[in-house]
Amino acid sequence: MRELAVVLVSGGMDSCVVLALAARDHDLALLHVTYGQRTWRRELQSFHALADHYGVSRRLVASIGYLREIGGSSLLDERLPVPEGPPGRGIPSTYVPFRNAHLLAIAASWGEVMGARRIFFGAMEEDSSGYPDCREAFVQAFNRLVEVGTRPETRLEVVAPLLHLRKSEVVRLGVELGAPFELTWSCYQREDRPCGRCESCVLRARAFREAGVPDPLTSAPGR
Amino acid sequence: MRELAVVLVSGGMDSCVVLALAARDHDLALLHVTYGQRTWRRELQSFHALADHYGVSRRLVASIGYLREIGGSSLLDERLPVPEGPPGRGIPSTYVPFRNAHLLAIAASWGEVMGARRIFFGAMEEDSSGYPDCREAFVQAFNRLVEVGTRPETRLEVVAPLLHLRKSEVVRLGVELGAPFELTWSCYQREDRPCGRCESCVLRARAFREAGVPDPLTSAPGR
Repeated sequence: MRELAVVLVSGGMDSCVVLALAARDHDLALLHVTYGQRTWRRELQSFHALADHYGVSRRLVASIGYLREIGGSSLLDERLPVPEGPPGRGIPSTYVPFRNAHLLAIAASWGEVMGARRIFFGAMEEDSSGYPDCREAFVQAFNRLVEVGTRPETRLEVVAPLLHLRKSEVVRLGVELGAPFELTWSCYQREDRPCGRCESCVLRARAFREAGVPDPLTSAPGR
Repeated sequence: MRELAVVLVSGGMDSCVVLALAARDHDLALLHVTYGQRTWRRELQSFHALADHYGVSRRLVASIGYLREIGGSSLLDERLPVPEGPPGRGIPSTYVPFRNAHLLAIAASWGEVMGARRIFFGAMEEDSSGYPDCREAFVQAFNRLVEVGTRPETRLEVVAPLLHLRKSEVVRLGVELGAPFELTWSCYQREDRPCGRCESCVLRARAFREAGVPDPLTSAPGR
């Protein structure tokens, strides 16, 4: 019997590849968390498209709208501009304070109730925006929290298979696994077509370019 | 200048005493989290009454209704009975899987945005229901998570001053501090008057009895 895994699926390219990896040898439960970010509708649409693609019916969409009330991020506060171009030094204004702790806590509660064994998490430490809650130390600390904060019989571990890959390697891995990149969404600003200028679009374009693979989202406009 | 603290205020007697403690030497921001538990209306009412009592205007009420969708607890699922009498061995059915990770994550995000220095948390390890996410090891693990998962300049620490007190000691401490116990709510089952039989009512009654203090909620029905 396959073990059950919760996969955090934002709808972006990284979570798409993580999903493709997890689907090889786990039963799946897919979690999407919406928190009032600018492009939430388009990301939710990508989530369901990816879940349909992999034939997963066990889905949870959790809304944590209070993050928008808390604010402190240009992804949540429309008065703050989303920075354009590649990430600079330091933590960018798109950082949503401690966001991944919320996402993983939801995955852990759900996973504990269902008896899941793993939580797949698409965080990347290298070649990304430098968010503190995307680092290996964070994943390790979270696993310790799950170990001490759940029932003694719960065996649930966060795995982050992309943590030390470059984003171009993620593209290549996705191509190998047949990941449906055309269903994903990465842009921080627009929902109709990628803006091509925000940090997330710039990182995605660079990754596909370095991998030598066309991005189906931008290379085939009729698709 | 006083430092800013986020206080988790459920509306129960323990958080009331923690609030009384924090109010002595901190500026306050009060957080209440509602998650679809049976008595949420009454608890929210207690939260605002306590905030009014201490003159705190900085309040955040966060709703995490997805916990109810996840289920797995008799506090959330009305098909499961709430156990009556004192806690037995093992983790009771009222355990809400990994709940305190969600509560503390909200407090940490809010605290980070506001530049708070402390999160006051009323967890008790002794003389309580034995929930895994109420133990010192959990608080320590959470502090490590905050340390690695927030901006480098963020200095935010969870403190749990009741962790090793008996509940009767919490009553005595509250009396010393003038904590308004009459504004609190503990019952898991009813919102009009305490049922007197659920685990939470039984623990509360025993604590007041052992402290030799009348509980204003049950000793003065006209109040």
